[in-house]
Parts: sequence; C-alpha cells; structure tokens
Amino acid sequence: MRIALDAMGTDTAPAAEVAGAIGALRDSATQDVEIILVGDEDLVRAELARHDDVPEGIRVHHAPDRVTVEDSPASVLRRKPNSSMVVGLKLHKAGEADAFVSAGSTGAVMASSLFTLRPLSGVDRPPVGTLLPTAGELCLLLDAGANIGCKPGHLVQFAHLGSTYMRDVMGRKNPRVGLLNIGEEPGKGDELTIETYDLLTRETGLNFIGNIEGRDIIRGECDVIVCDGFVGNILLKFYESVAGYIVQLLKAEIGPVGDSNSGLERVFRVLDYAEYGGAPLLGLGGVSIICHGGSPPKAIHNALVVAARAGRSGLVQHSAEEFQT
Amino acid sequence: MRIALDAMGTDTAPAAEVAGAIGALRDSATQDVEIILVGDEDLVRAELARHDDVPEGIRVHHAPDRVTVEDSPASVLRRKPNSSMVVGLKLHKAGEADAFVSAGSTGAVMASSLFTLRPLSGVDRPPVGTLLPTAGELCLLLDAGANIGCKPGHLVQFAHLGSTYMRDVMGRKNPRVGLLNIGEEPGKGDELTIETYDLLTRETGLNFIGNIEGRDIIRGECDVIVCDGFVGNILLKFYESVAGYIVQLLKAEIGPVGDSNSGLERVFRVLDYAEYGGAPLLGLGGVSIICHGGSPPKAIHNALVVAARAGRSGLVQHSAEEFQT
Repeated sequence: MRIALDAMGTDTAPAAEVAGAIGALRDSATQDVEIILVGDEDLVRAELARHDDVPEGIRVHHAPDRVTVEDSPASVLRRKPNSSMVVGLKLHKAGEADAFVSAGSTGAVMASSLFTLRPLSGVDRPPVGTLLPTAGELCLLLDAGANIGCKPGHLVQFAHLGSTYMRDVMGRKNPRVGLLNIGEEPGKGDELTIETYDLLTRETGLNFIGNIEGRDIIRGECDVIVCDGFVGNILLKFYESVAGYIVQLLKAEIGPVGDSNSGLERVFRVLDYAEYGGAPLLGLGGVSIICHGGSPPKAIHNALVVAARAGRSGLVQHSAEEFQT
Repeated sequence: MRIALDAMGTDTAPAAEVAGAIGALRDSATQDVEIILVGDEDLVRAELARHDDVPEGIRVHHAPDRVTVEDSPASVLRRKPNSSMVVGLKLHKAGEADAFVSAGSTGAVMASSLFTLRPLSGVDRPPVGTLLPTAGELCLLLDAGANIGCKPGHLVQFAHLGSTYMRDVMGRKNPRVGLLNIGEEPGKGDELTIETYDLLTRETGLNFIGNIEGRDIIRGECDVIVCDGFVGNILLKFYESVAGYIVQLLKAEIGPVGDSNSGLERVFRVLDYAEYGGAPLLGLGGVSIICHGGSPPKAIHNALVVAARAGRSGLVQHSAEEFQT
C-alpha cells in the first residue's frame, strides 16, 4: 500500500505534510504504508531533517513545480505538468501509488483528478464527499460543492457512491441514505428533490430512508446525505465556521482548557474538523483525497489514514460494480 | 400601540403566550403596549389567574376555535374563521391592532397572513426573515423557507425588504446586503445567483456588498443575507439544531452551569434562539411575526418587542415606499 502525498499543498508546505506523514507512519492504522512525498526534493529533505527518528516508509519523489491559487484549475494539468500535484496524481494513475492526497487548491485537485483518473463508467459528475460530525456517528454529505445544478439522476449516483464509501472506508453495514430537503413528506421540496425522492424510492441496492431536514443532520440518523453542490457547499462551510466560532467563543469565555478538563477537550474534538481527514473525490478510477489548505499535521495524518482505508478496501472496484447492470 | 397575540399557538398554549405577554408588559421596551390575547376566553382567563400581579395593558379577545397542525395552511382562513389565528389577523387588518404575533403552525400563519394582509404593490413573493446570531451583530437571512424556486427579481425584492426591516426594527443605518453563494467572485454560483448578483449591483438604494459564502455568515459582516427559501430553510434549521446540540453537549460534559459561571451563560445565550424573537413575514400590508411552536415565554416576549418596534417604526409604510418608483 503506497500513498502519493502532494508535499506542497498546505499553506505551511512542506512542514504540515512532512509532520502529518510521520504521524501517520507512527499510527497503527497506517504504519505499514509507504508514503511518497511528492515535491521539491531539497525543500522536503530539509524539512525531514528537522525531525528526529523519521520512520521507515517515507520516500521522496522530486517534482520541481508547484500549483498556486493563481493557477486556473482547468489548466493545471497542461501548464504545470511538473507540479507536485500533477506528478503525484500521475504516480497514482501509473499504479506506482494506490491513492493520492493533496491540500493544494481544491479546484485544481478536483479538475486534475477528474482528467487524470477519469470518471467511472456510469458516473456523470463525480462528487466531493465530506464527513460531518453529528450527535451520532460521522455522516457523509455529498456533493459538497463540485457540482452545481444537478439533475435527479446525479443525486442517485451520489447515493450509490456515498453508500459504497461508507461501507468500505467507514465500516457501515447498510448505510442509510437521506435526501436533504425542506420537509419530511415525499411531496416537499423543489423540482430536483421531488423527482430525486421518487427515483430513490425505486432504486434497488440503496437503503433510502427519505427526506432529511436541516434540523435532522445533527442527530446523525443517516450515514449518507445527498444534495446539490450549491446547498452542500454552503452548509459545509457554514458548519465549519460555526464550529470554529463556538470553540473560539468558549475559549475566550472560559480561558485556556488544559488536560485537566478532559470533558471540554472532548467537546472541542467533536467540533474540530481536523479530526476527520480530507474530503474524498468519488466516482473516479482512483482514490483522491482533498484537504484544506490550512490543514495542520493532524488533518494530513488523518487524510492519509482515510486514503489507506480507501485503497485497501477496494473502494474503486466496488464503486465501479455499483454501476454495472 | 396594540399587538394581537394568538394565544393558542404554542405547544403549551396558552401558558407560554400568557407568561410571554406578562413579561413583555414588564419590559421597558413594551410596557406601554396593549396586548390583545386572542383565544378561548375561559382558557386564557384561567391561565391569567395563575399569575400574580398581571400588569395593566392585557386584554382578552374571545376566539373559540384553534388552528392545528392537521389543518391545511391554505384552507385555514375559510375553514377556521373563528380560530385565534384568523381572528387575531383580522383585528390587525381592521386596524384594531397594529401588529400580529403567532406561534401557530408556520404554514398556516404564512398563508393566512398573506391572504389577509395582502402583499404590498411591487412585492411578488413575501419572504420570511430570520435573525441569525453571529460573531458580530444579528444578521437577517431571507427567504427562510416561504419561497422555493425564486427568480433573481424576487431576491432583489428581498434585499429591499430586509434592508428596510434592519433599518426600522434593528436600527442599522445603512444595512449591508450580501448574496448567499458558493464563492466570492461575481461569476460564481448557479444561474439564480449569477443573475441576481448582476441585478443587485445595478440596483439603487441598496448597500450591496457582494457574495457571502457559508463560512462568512458567522463573521457578521453583513446585516441582510438574501437567498432562495430552499437553501435558507436548510441553513436556518441546521443552525438552530447545531446550536442546541452544542449546548446540550457542553452541559453534558461540564455539568450544570449556574450563575457562578457567567461566561458560559453568555455563550449559551449566543446560541439560544429564544433570545431573538420571532421571524417576520415581510412585504405585507401589516406586521406578522411567526414564532416556533415550541417557543418558551421568553421567545414570545421577545417577539412582542419586535412586533412593537415594527409597528412603531412605520415598517409597512417604509417597505411600501421602497417599491414606489
């Protein structure tokens, strides 16, 4: 199991990537994984030299160039062929790595992954999934922003891709699928959700549990929530910011929280997105995990754990089978 | 200044309504207001008798019937003419009250208000506004669920109605209007938001500050956020439930919080929707404020304060002027 990690993606690259990779190799879930740090070899080696006891299983693959936020996402593949992002993706495509992780510009990772790894047969618009903390277990929301103006058939594809992901990567036996909507009853919603509801009830191989309102998400009563990328993106970014705000508010009001107050630390952990690893791009002929540009080492570490699980479980094969008739 | 309060709206009616009205009459902001409790006279008087020192300024107006969640919203006006909701609205329409407040079924309050108070000239689809707590000041989100499948022109109307509300009721001098979207740049979004952006930049008499992403809401950098009712409703219900969940999580982790820990109480207050009064239905020929069915007395109290401010400020007149050319 080898993972290609774009070492030049985060705002603090390659520091967060190197520390995250070292953390992952000390983690029992991923200590047998080989991590290929893709980036400027001098910079990456200099960063590695700042760590004591670098574990075995780290390899550096030189890529002299780097994708920036100024690069138009669609042009990265053509204009930055020697960037850490493109070189890493190509290692995965060529079978020299079993998964790819990047905290580079989200649009660029999406576009480059799409054109390099290609959509699976039967997948029209590969979605981005994102795990939301809930009062129950984590729940996968998709699409989180890759696809605006979806048709009902796209949301049905998301339901299959999300279910496969939650089975393979999160170990959910029979993932419950909810349709994000503004009412519980079947006839509620806009054109998209009314027709999607109808299609989902007639679809086989899905555990569709009906409409999910905004207020139901936090209860954690489903494993997969499907929606158009417009509302998904707004919801996701809102949740991240609210969680961050509340943590900040609490810390300002009650002062720093040390180990002595483990209860509060647990609350912060629920609110802390870094715990949950990156956002998978689903429905492609490979595993591509997108992290925030502001990812700390812990988030990179967790994304590597997710990438390893996705690679080992046969997610891509199982996703492809989901669309074979 | 007289407010007709539907006394039979909450799940605990008329207890929450009576206690809320008494609270409002002890509040310096509304102690000179007359509150007309509309509902079954025996029940309301029995509830009043449970309170000591009922302030002057409470009047009871008998309405024998009651709207329930089983009633189809569109049929309430015709089928339940003697309900507390319809009688209260008609008092307002007839000029015997200057505003109306109800915690009855949201759909029924919306439909009955629409057909009784009628939209102002130039307003195609009266929206529901809702105040969101932010790191800065409260921000009005509209539409919060009354209108699905809006056209760009509707969102421009919402911008005018929201700006007038924030000026008149919340005292904001030059309300900043944001368009809820999935990116900051003008070309971002779906068909609706791209065209709305264009219209808003060309509109006079609005302080349009551009696109607002999900992550920007909590910063409190605008006074009014406009969006279609689909995304508005999901966002609103999500926020309410997340805030409630976090409070519950915190209380479970750190135990009950007494007066001794006023910092945490302040955090809870930010998260507590009951603080912020009801949701105004805007663009009508009258003031109609909708409360949650689960409203505690404090929420009714605050909705009455909001109704009084709206009535006194000339909100309806100013809203009408906004559409005169």
